[in-house]
Amino acid sequence: MARTSPNLVITTADVKNMRAAITQEGKFKTTFVAVKASVDKQIAQKITVPVPQDGGGGYTHERHKKNYQLMYDAGVIYQLSQDERYAHYVRDMLLEYAKLYPTLPLHPKRKMGKQSPGKLFWQSLNEAMWLVYSSQAYDLILSSLTTTQKQTIEQGLFRPIVKFLSVESPQTFNKVHNHGTWTTAAVGMTGYVLGEQEWVEQALYDLEKSGKGGFLRQLDELFSPQGYYNEGPYYQRFALLPFVTFAKAIQTNQPERKIFEYRDGIILKAINTTIQLSYNKLFFPINDSIKSKGIDTIELVNGVTIAYGFTGEKGLLDIAKQQNQIILTGDGLKVAQALDNKFEKPYQFKSIAFGDGHDGKQGALVIMRQNVQGEQAVLFKPAAQGLGHGHFDKLTWQFYDRGEEIVSDYGAARFLNVEAKYGGRYLPENDTWAKHTVAHNTVVVDETTHFNANVEVGNANYPELLFFEKSDNVILSSAKIDTAYKGVSLTRTMALINTPIHNGKEQAKSLVVDIFDVKSKEQHQYDLPVHYKGHLISTSFKLNTNVTNLPVLGTDNGYQHLWLKAQAQPKAGLSQITWLNENGRFYTNSSIMDGEASFIFTQIGANDPLFNLRNENAFINRKTKAKDHTYVSVLEAHGEYNPSKEFTLNAVSEIQKLSHKKINQVEVIEIGFSDEQHYLLAINSAENVKHNQKSTFSFNGSKYQFDGRFKLFDIKE
Amino acid sequence: MARTSPNLVITTADVKNMRAAITQEGKFKTTFVAVKASVDKQIAQKITVPVPQDGGGGYTHERHKKNYQLMYDAGVIYQLSQDERYAHYVRDMLLEYAKLYPTLPLHPKRKMGKQSPGKLFWQSLNEAMWLVYSSQAYDLILSSLTTTQKQTIEQGLFRPIVKFLSVESPQTFNKVHNHGTWTTAAVGMTGYVLGEQEWVEQALYDLEKSGKGGFLRQLDELFSPQGYYNEGPYYQRFALLPFVTFAKAIQTNQPERKIFEYRDGIILKAINTTIQLSYNKLFFPINDSIKSKGIDTIELVNGVTIAYGFTGEKGLLDIAKQQNQIILTGDGLKVAQALDNKFEKPYQFKSIAFGDGHDGKQGALVIMRQNVQGEQAVLFKPAAQGLGHGHFDKLTWQFYDRGEEIVSDYGAARFLNVEAKYGGRYLPENDTWAKHTVAHNTVVVDETTHFNANVEVGNANYPELLFFEKSDNVILSSAKIDTAYKGVSLTRTMALINTPIHNGKEQAKSLVVDIFDVKSKEQHQYDLPVHYKGHLISTSFKLNTNVTNLPVLGTDNGYQHLWLKAQAQPKAGLSQITWLNENGRFYTNSSIMDGEASFIFTQIGANDPLFNLRNENAFINRKTKAKDHTYVSVLEAHGEYNPSKEFTLNAVSEIQKLSHKKINQVEVIEIGFSDEQHYLLAINSAENVKHNQKSTFSFNGSKYQFDGRFKLFDIKE
Repeated sequence: MARTSPNLVITTADVKNMRAAITQEGKFKTTFVAVKASVDKQIAQKITVPVPQDGGGGYTHERHKKNYQLMYDAGVIYQLSQDERYAHYVRDMLLEYAKLYPTLPLHPKRKMGKQSPGKLFWQSLNEAMWLVYSSQAYDLILSSLTTTQKQTIEQGLFRPIVKFLSVESPQTFNKVHNHGTWTTAAVGMTGYVLGEQEWVEQALYDLEKSGKGGFLRQLDELFSPQGYYNEGPYYQRFALLPFVTFAKAIQTNQPERKIFEYRDGIILKAINTTIQLSYNKLFFPINDSIKSKGIDTIELVNGVTIAYGFTGEKGLLDIAKQQNQIILTGDGLKVAQALDNKFEKPYQFKSIAFGDGHDGKQGALVIMRQNVQGEQAVLFKPAAQGLGHGHFDKLTWQFYDRGEEIVSDYGAARFLNVEAKYGGRYLPENDTWAKHTVAHNTVVVDETTHFNANVEVGNANYPELLFFEKSDNVILSSAKIDTAYKGVSLTRTMALINTPIHNGKEQAKSLVVDIFDVKSKEQHQYDLPVHYKGHLISTSFKLNTNVTNLPVLGTDNGYQHLWLKAQAQPKAGLSQITWLNENGRFYTNSSIMDGEASFIFTQIGANDPLFNLRNENAFINRKTKAKDHTYVSVLEAHGEYNPSKEFTLNAVSEIQKLSHKKINQVEVIEIGFSDEQHYLLAINSAENVKHNQKSTFSFNGSKYQFDGRFKLFDIKE
Repeated sequence: MARTSPNLVITTADVKNMRAAITQEGKFKTTFVAVKASVDKQIAQKITVPVPQDGGGGYTHERHKKNYQLMYDAGVIYQLSQDERYAHYVRDMLLEYAKLYPTLPLHPKRKMGKQSPGKLFWQSLNEAMWLVYSSQAYDLILSSLTTTQKQTIEQGLFRPIVKFLSVESPQTFNKVHNHGTWTTAAVGMTGYVLGEQEWVEQALYDLEKSGKGGFLRQLDELFSPQGYYNEGPYYQRFALLPFVTFAKAIQTNQPERKIFEYRDGIILKAINTTIQLSYNKLFFPINDSIKSKGIDTIELVNGVTIAYGFTGEKGLLDIAKQQNQIILTGDGLKVAQALDNKFEKPYQFKSIAFGDGHDGKQGALVIMRQNVQGEQAVLFKPAAQGLGHGHFDKLTWQFYDRGEEIVSDYGAARFLNVEAKYGGRYLPENDTWAKHTVAHNTVVVDETTHFNANVEVGNANYPELLFFEKSDNVILSSAKIDTAYKGVSLTRTMALINTPIHNGKEQAKSLVVDIFDVKSKEQHQYDLPVHYKGHLISTSFKLNTNVTNLPVLGTDNGYQHLWLKAQAQPKAGLSQITWLNENGRFYTNSSIMDGEASFIFTQIGANDPLFNLRNENAFINRKTKAKDHTYVSVLEAHGEYNPSKEFTLNAVSEIQKLSHKKINQVEVIEIGFSDEQHYLLAINSAENVKHNQKSTFSFNGSKYQFDGRFKLFDIKE
């Protein structure tokens, strides 16, 4: 049967439109011209297909990576320009590979046991990526080849590599894991090009077509029902590419499979969720993540392009505009033309609790957003461990305001590809610092790490999301975990509040309320760190600062990396710490202290002989001996520091009163700015609370009543 | 004689054009609408003219400041809208002041001896500023007043305040100093409005009209012939406003004085120099400066507006566009309309040595600029002390690349107007850290500060600029000072280099060559710090890092604020230190070490009980015992770190060879990247070198010859 070509991500119909588009000015043509210029420069060089020799980052590794991208790009330019030189270049390179591939043993730099080996590359993951691109390149030039050439390339290259990646590597191929996705995508797409429907079936349902593995099972297992990927946004973005690429190829070849509707549209949900997991263009840096990764990464550019092609949602164009990168495909053309016509509408970022795990019930990743004189976001993380790249940070949180990190997460300790920094790999400090609990904004018991830093134990246990609710002024969530420490129960309730305005007199204020309840039958030491970004401005209590000598705070579990800068033991009552962020706004942490707990001010950098760590600051609320302890604190964004225009507004917190009581099942947080501006946040913390269930409580002699989970009372004192 | 009104900065002709402009869409109208809305909001409130009571930042202080701005704005809106309500508001407020002023004693919060006192304000400086604005406000509403009202206001307010600021305060009025400029401008402008030409004469020539003081003498003395203001850009910007405002009023009333041509156009030069003293919109932060101050400050907005009005130079529009602020004056209208019509042309930033002092011969502030894959700037500072706000940093330098600070200056230790930080004033650490030599990038002898930190001695002595020269690939400057330390001569030569390209093979590289020659008959310890911005990536030598305990480096002169993070004693030869800046580029300092000198790695923050200092990093090249010592180093910008796109290029310095020889009078710096790419920078360091003077030297067996001061030889090894 003569096959239509191309017919994977790009179709013949696409090509027709794309050829028309490059005759007119616009974003698509601009991209075409740039890619063509880049390809022209590269194909002027001799084809180089070296015998595999080097591991990641080495010459042959990088060369084979460049080759697949180059073949793909040249294939696209061939289709658009109809200039045979590009097809010949791809053909000749594929012929070189067809000559080389059958001669190859397993890669000399393979790491058996640690990762599945490839032949062109040290790991089969790269081999699968190579095939995802080169199968598309082959599809793009197919019509230019003679039957003999096709036979040579298929017999010498594509059949052996598919065999190697599928039947010869069942453990990876059948694995329900991101590496399995790349492999099944590669094999399935090659199956479409070579007309081997059997390979497609194996890719979809596993080698035995049992459905226990394969692409569809991966779609069932690797995402939560809302499209959240267990390892977090940094790896979600990475995992996305083979999913969207193979799905698009399936849609093209077998639209009857309705792959984009599979599992209630899980692929589109995954793309949207990846976008939702960002703030000011960057992904929330939970788990092992490089903090500068964001929505403009190529994987998400592909995702957004394909999603727009399928749905035509104008909000996606807003993201595409920020990505500022056009893909030379049919969907890419649709995006380019829509942007040329300014069709974009603001993308709607929402407050959502993303259930974790394949069933969405293994904890959750909670995002709360509001706009009060700038956009705020709280990320609250009662999520599951997230496998080997997960951090031991159950119930941690982060806070963002006006585009900047305010309460931060260290992310991964890594300088990606910087040879001098441990070969560009994860630094040793990723294990000794970044993964540990104290590197996050959550409770550390007895200076040890959640699950004793054991990944398997972490993967087997997860927090429970107790509730997630919203009203006009409050977004509220609560979660608990009893397994992070033996015999210790941790429950955290967080609220992002936008204070109501009285008679237009005050400005609305942005507050985060944090109630962290720790319960144990034994006595422990509890530490609650806040890793803050900015310059410490003031404390409402006296600091004992180490001025001539900095000691280390502890010996293990990340504590060995903290310099002890200052200590303080504030009096019982309201204690405040104010800092100033780069964004010119002040932030005050107000805590209710009991007169015994202390604050410890730290800086990262001890036991760091090679200056691998960033010297960031934190304060730790420490309760040395307690069974049950409740931390109550409020983070307040206020004022403005504008040295350029020479004004400073509200550099001082306006909170004058903070109290916490538990009255039966009702938690009551009192936040007072002045007699006129005074709030009670009342939360019914019972397990199940119905929508119309009434709660009542007395406070300072007055009676209060509310329906459902919570209410923010606006009272006068 | 009936006076035309208004006729100071704004004229009746201006008003006609401005009234026409607000009937059409454009930047001018937009600004008018915004200012009018702001004024409307304020004049809806009751007029408040409180009895003076508070010092700077306090209520009555801020209220009187707001009042003068409000009267001025309301006056402008009156002229534009012709709505009498605005005139009445100004009139009523002036009448209040006319009632209050005659009753006022000296301000209760005055600080006698320290600063000249005012009546409305604690210092007469603020009183003069008040008058600069309110005299203009009065001028703007003059035509709406009855003769009686004028008499009341002039007798009760303007005559007494002028008398107070002039004949009753001769010491300030006659002083050739920035405070004198505000005072003479205020009195002179009021003189024009009230038709008191005598006041104008006094403002121009001093109270006795001797010419020993007054505005013209200030123009003679306070700027160098190139328009550089002795205290540096931060205070130059501040000083600018009364100069340009009064000059504009003089031009309006007495064009025959040709004030803008005075002293070869010194006012326009001063405006242009202020712009030149910026990088990426921010002023170079020498001396006491708040680092976020830049070209968008209101003083420079006024300066650029008036300069454009006078010259029509389109480069100024480029700056005005970046300032993004329109002034409601005739000149402001010209700027607005020119920007509406997109007339702007790129402003030309240049490499210049600004002579310091009234004669331009008291040292110089040198700026070198180039564009090599991004804009670089070197600021080299063999400038004079710059009075009380000057830092003890003779021959220091700073380096900027791709919009960011790379080798930095701390600026002032101050959180402007942040009450919790020492009342928002200069912090104690400004004296104990920021002004000291070790806080800069220049040689410290025996851990003491230049001039023993004595301002008077500093003001009396200054470096000598030896030369400043340019060629296609090199910008070169050299300076010396023998008075910073007794018996020690400091000579520094700096070059900013843009390496020539061979056959289009390599990319041009940006290098800074630094030769710091210290000579003494006695033995001393010499420290040369480099305050770098970024994360330390690697060193070519082994570090002894303090991992469990951080000691303080020293006890005084700023050393007490430095934590000693690590030490190293590299072998003789080339030693390299690489860091990564926020801008994603790598920077390597290559130094020639003698095997005895050491590197000390520090962080600011010791002896800082209230967390007042920023915790920034430096390395110090220390030679403990030497009489003569020459530091030779090269700073190289290289590579790119792009974790978002997952690539890292050239993270390692390409310099493989660095040597320095002095062959007779010729300094020869050899910089080798590879056999193919090898340079010799030869500099004839004799006192006077003529343009066509020939120098010869031998190097590695070859003979070289060049004309004039220097040559960059591009050789193969």
